[in-house]
Amino acid sequence: MEQRILHEGSLLTASYVVSAVAEFNQGLRGETTMQLRVLLLVGGITAVLTQTAAGDDGMFPMSELGRLNLRERGLELTAEQLFNPSGISLVDGICRVNGCTGSFVSAQGLIITNHHCAFGAIQKASTRERDLLQDGFRAGSLEEEIPAPDYQVRITEDYQDVSQQVLSVLTAEMSFLERTRAVDRRCRELEQEAEKQHAGLRAEVSEMFPGRTYVLFLYTYLKDVRLVFAPPVSVGNFGGEIDNWEWPRHTGDFSFMRAYTAPDGSSATFAKENIPYRPRRHLKVAPQGVDEGDAVFLLGYPGRTARHRTAEFVRYERDIRLPLTVELYAWQISEMERAAAADREVAIRVASRMRSLANVEKRSRGQVLGLTRAGIVEQRSAREEELQKFIDADASRKQKYGGVLSEINGVYEQMTATGPWEIHFEQLRQACHAMSYGFYVVDAAAERSKADLEREQSYQDRNFEQTSGRMLVSMRDWNLRLDVILLSGMLERLSQFPEVEQIPALRQLTNDAALIGQQAERLLSETSLGDPEFVKACLQKSSEQLAAINDPLLQLLIALYPYYVEMRDQQKAQDGQLDRLYGSLLEVKEQFLAEAFVPDANATLRLTTGRIRAYSPADAVIRTPISTLRGVIEKTTGKAPFDTPEAVLKAWQAGDSGQFRHPRLQQVPVAILYDTDTTGGNSGSPVLNSRGELVGVNFDRCFEATINDFAWNTDYSRSIGVDIRYVLWITSRVYGAGYLLREMGVDPAE
Amino acid sequence: MEQRILHEGSLLTASYVVSAVAEFNQGLRGETTMQLRVLLLVGGITAVLTQTAAGDDGMFPMSELGRLNLRERGLELTAEQLFNPSGISLVDGICRVNGCTGSFVSAQGLIITNHHCAFGAIQKASTRERDLLQDGFRAGSLEEEIPAPDYQVRITEDYQDVSQQVLSVLTAEMSFLERTRAVDRRCRELEQEAEKQHAGLRAEVSEMFPGRTYVLFLYTYLKDVRLVFAPPVSVGNFGGEIDNWEWPRHTGDFSFMRAYTAPDGSSATFAKENIPYRPRRHLKVAPQGVDEGDAVFLLGYPGRTARHRTAEFVRYERDIRLPLTVELYAWQISEMERAAAADREVAIRVASRMRSLANVEKRSRGQVLGLTRAGIVEQRSAREEELQKFIDADASRKQKYGGVLSEINGVYEQMTATGPWEIHFEQLRQACHAMSYGFYVVDAAAERSKADLEREQSYQDRNFEQTSGRMLVSMRDWNLRLDVILLSGMLERLSQFPEVEQIPALRQLTNDAALIGQQAERLLSETSLGDPEFVKACLQKSSEQLAAINDPLLQLLIALYPYYVEMRDQQKAQDGQLDRLYGSLLEVKEQFLAEAFVPDANATLRLTTGRIRAYSPADAVIRTPISTLRGVIEKTTGKAPFDTPEAVLKAWQAGDSGQFRHPRLQQVPVAILYDTDTTGGNSGSPVLNSRGELVGVNFDRCFEATINDFAWNTDYSRSIGVDIRYVLWITSRVYGAGYLLREMGVDPAE
Repeated sequence: MEQRILHEGSLLTASYVVSAVAEFNQGLRGETTMQLRVLLLVGGITAVLTQTAAGDDGMFPMSELGRLNLRERGLELTAEQLFNPSGISLVDGICRVNGCTGSFVSAQGLIITNHHCAFGAIQKASTRERDLLQDGFRAGSLEEEIPAPDYQVRITEDYQDVSQQVLSVLTAEMSFLERTRAVDRRCRELEQEAEKQHAGLRAEVSEMFPGRTYVLFLYTYLKDVRLVFAPPVSVGNFGGEIDNWEWPRHTGDFSFMRAYTAPDGSSATFAKENIPYRPRRHLKVAPQGVDEGDAVFLLGYPGRTARHRTAEFVRYERDIRLPLTVELYAWQISEMERAAAADREVAIRVASRMRSLANVEKRSRGQVLGLTRAGIVEQRSAREEELQKFIDADASRKQKYGGVLSEINGVYEQMTATGPWEIHFEQLRQACHAMSYGFYVVDAAAERSKADLEREQSYQDRNFEQTSGRMLVSMRDWNLRLDVILLSGMLERLSQFPEVEQIPALRQLTNDAALIGQQAERLLSETSLGDPEFVKACLQKSSEQLAAINDPLLQLLIALYPYYVEMRDQQKAQDGQLDRLYGSLLEVKEQFLAEAFVPDANATLRLTTGRIRAYSPADAVIRTPISTLRGVIEKTTGKAPFDTPEAVLKAWQAGDSGQFRHPRLQQVPVAILYDTDTTGGNSGSPVLNSRGELVGVNFDRCFEATINDFAWNTDYSRSIGVDIRYVLWITSRVYGAGYLLREMGVDPAE
Repeated sequence: MEQRILHEGSLLTASYVVSAVAEFNQGLRGETTMQLRVLLLVGGITAVLTQTAAGDDGMFPMSELGRLNLRERGLELTAEQLFNPSGISLVDGICRVNGCTGSFVSAQGLIITNHHCAFGAIQKASTRERDLLQDGFRAGSLEEEIPAPDYQVRITEDYQDVSQQVLSVLTAEMSFLERTRAVDRRCRELEQEAEKQHAGLRAEVSEMFPGRTYVLFLYTYLKDVRLVFAPPVSVGNFGGEIDNWEWPRHTGDFSFMRAYTAPDGSSATFAKENIPYRPRRHLKVAPQGVDEGDAVFLLGYPGRTARHRTAEFVRYERDIRLPLTVELYAWQISEMERAAAADREVAIRVASRMRSLANVEKRSRGQVLGLTRAGIVEQRSAREEELQKFIDADASRKQKYGGVLSEINGVYEQMTATGPWEIHFEQLRQACHAMSYGFYVVDAAAERSKADLEREQSYQDRNFEQTSGRMLVSMRDWNLRLDVILLSGMLERLSQFPEVEQIPALRQLTNDAALIGQQAERLLSETSLGDPEFVKACLQKSSEQLAAINDPLLQLLIALYPYYVEMRDQQKAQDGQLDRLYGSLLEVKEQFLAEAFVPDANATLRLTTGRIRAYSPADAVIRTPISTLRGVIEKTTGKAPFDTPEAVLKAWQAGDSGQFRHPRLQQVPVAILYDTDTTGGNSGSPVLNSRGELVGVNFDRCFEATINDFAWNTDYSRSIGVDIRYVLWITSRVYGAGYLLREMGVDPAE
């Protein structure tokens, strides 16, 4: 599923604040698990898999819409009808829902997004007695809607290019670390200025091309978000991890939420008197859906891609970070599964976390496989050789750009060397949640002693309350037993590295291998870091005050803190170096290829277009692009994740599908497949027909397309959405919420 | 793969003599392994899977050709061009090669059949030093061809209906056991008479409809068969057990053999002076192959189907025999794999046996799944209820047929009760090969003391030398260590049954569970039954003489023998009862449905027609009907069973495929898929185009079609053949045997 996990410019995706940072750090650093690399690259196979994109790849920023031939892409709308910052346009119907995309589908602030995007809200509202994950949820009235305290809805209001203002602060004498800090600080300044000018809006500067282009976005944030309707998890996550990242898919991955404002229409946190938000515009729902070959387009917030990174970066990912992610996550998942199997309460508490890990684990597996099979490293190396020849052919070019590629490679070589240790050291404080809370407390005390603009973003005044609040909400799911297992497992892993010798606090914990389990047990049973009240109190304290608290885990984090800071600074320095180098690389690449590029995804609003389209994953196999209810029935075994609810089976047997039946397939369509260019963060993106009407909700890619992050290809890049007809059929015919269809302007009786 | 395993009329398929009998016995008897029955039958799913055949199912005996509209089925040949006992027809180009089908493809007796059909010959000719399985084999001249001593080629010469002559011996007073014995005896008499009339030919009576129709066939047997060409097993069995019973397939499952006769043209065993057999007719090879939608037909010897059996039989198969087969075979395979992994010599020796078991194990798994999903038992029950209503509606019909169905069900209930024990008791002497040899010796002594026609077929004078010879050849592969493991495993399993208490010899071996392994070790290390010379000598001895031999395993078999005989007689009595009952059932079914039936397959020559055709195994998945070399490359990992030989990879890279390239797919086709009606025994059947030219060699079915044995369906019944273009490309372009193409009349250079 397309849950966005990679780090992104704004820390306001902070429901994942901890794991997002972890992912980002991992994103820059690992060790190879060789068993994943058994695929032999036979000469010839790449002929099929590596045709370069026909030019139809691209996640276009709003600023690029003007140069696109939308009609040729099958759209009946103009660029202005899509995005018009001075009027009302389609984009006003799109929002971001935490790390996902959502669409307004009524004048009353009703939002459709994925079930997996609302998953955290559903999970947090569930208890052993009232299991909304298992049973689904339907609010019979506005009053019954359930607040989702850690959810926010963001709407894009405007944007402007601020590259010059950002880059003007750089001087030639700056070190790489200083460059990164200066850019960060300048971005924060610009944001503050903009927010002063535009009261009530939030400003965020996003880096479009590293080291070259920066855009300031103005956003509205709505802070009162409520759960309206969710199908049972056996519909919303039908097929579970088995079907995740696979096509054909039979998952009803959708939910409805609603945004609220204060009675005066301003953004406000939850209050009883709040009223439904009135979007400037909402999307029209097209109950007739689409058919094979139809043009579709998506609007959404794709997280991160790495299409402009060099071969060495891809090699680092393929050989170091991704295999290590697979290994560490697979282990954590298996431990969580064991804990969940023993206790349904624990199962509910770890469900969301387990799913996030499993999602990344399988995607990473697909990426290792895909990068290897498609020979992306080899291809990119070959292109870079060509580029180097081009550079070397001209003396002045050689003077200016001659060393850029090898300098970039130097950074990745360094990451390759230090990655395995760093990824493990990071994972120590990620896997064990009490360690995460403790790190946040220690980090907050150190950072908040600095001037506001000098701090890490999470701790800046405008963010701190929110990031802290989210972390405290997430502490509800803390589980001591699981934390002991994960902490002791991570300590065992770390004890295998020579680096542990340099860190006395760690050396002491791991020097007797037989006692590691006991040490973990002692640290966690004696700490108060699992207690939200204690953590809340700690967040008010200075570093000196924390040092005086008698809590063994907190003291461990204080002892480890300088090493974490050193690692963070080292990574910032690398980022600064890469930013500068990639700025130069892009310059010379533009000369070489004589064409403009689309920037890598960066969680800002993008358009992508394509068609409903089959694909061939293997010789003599074709997967057609519309799955149907028949497939749900075929897959149903009665056992999770293939345990279709009785209500669905009954409605299927009744055959009463009316307007939601596909005329050719004579079945209710469940999911659709299309060749648009998407990545993580596109979860919940509306799938729109040529007239801009809603025909589906994007939620995943096929397995072969997990490598979209690195390279898009017309043969295998396919994205997956839930068909609007399944959404409407499930909501009205199966679960009797026909009133929601009426709210969306669809007659449920037809 | 379509290796025929089910028991059949003639014991001359005796390369499998031991296991065939085992299968047959198992075929009539079991215990449910519940883990296989987790599939929930959801109402509705059957709508897809159980559409009844459009009438295109049918394995037509030669006697039925006249009533078929061949032109409508896409054939450009008349019934007489297909089969003409008084002239030369296409059928003269077809033969049986042990349990498989083969085709003559040159005037010099060159035969094409499957790699897995020639597997036994390739294996027996292989040693650790000269591994023909691994390296493949190419005879550069007639002299280099390798004799396959346990192979025979059979050609159908004529047939006649002898139902009246057979059934006339039955009287109303006979018991069921007496009925079976009388029919057997009468068949043997008719065979003897016919062989007197037709010197040099062999006569065999086959039961077409149980208890109703019997046909006497006249056959020529050629006893000097030699291996001519085999690709490496990494081509011939590419994909191994992973791809077995699956489509898309990328296996070059073909080999060439050659039949020889004495210089005067008569049938003779191997001799240096023998000459290639000159078939009356051979098949024309069509190097241009076929395309999607083209009509094809097959001629072959399908083994056994059970389409006329009742719901209760299918239930017994689904719940008792098949799950038990899966369990017992999977265990034996895993033990063999362990032994093979430790020693390549052992690996070669057990390869063929392991493959046979794995093939049946996977097919049985597919059948359990398919029978459950398609609801065959439920459907057939419903049809039988209708039939019962029809019977009960008329007083005289009720009088005559009223109890038939319930009596049949009574037999199956009895089998259901005794099956699990009987299957295990049978498997005791099947799993442990020294036990098989010993049983054969003891059985031979007892049977050969009777009058010739009263004996079990294997021991009748006309068969004995051959069945004994084959068994002695098969002893070359005996392995003491493996036998100890399998004997002790079977004894442990038997010790769980209360029945073991009734058999003192078994009780004594199993009463101390801790000592079972030692007992097995002792029996096998002290026996001479693994020694062909000892066994050969025993075959000359009477029962009394055997009783005097001091050999613990032989003495065990003598002690168990009466129990085996009792079980065999019991089964014969059940067969007799079922024969009579099915005779009546068919009579009344004909009245009910008012149409003629095609008899169940019985290893006699059959025609089936169809088209090259895609299928959909699941919602939104289509499998197209021609696989290509590209898929071989895609699947290649370098590790067995996906270890494509260097020679193939080189030829692929060279791209030099000439006339063997498919014009639309621009690749060498590897395998083809078609909707003809086939079952085990159709291995090696020629796939013929509308003009009767060879375009492929049949070798398997898709997984969904494993239930063909019980029910054919236009949606999922698909058979698989190797494409003639792959055969020719591999033979000439990859392995340089262009001279074989010239012998077949194909220009290898085109």
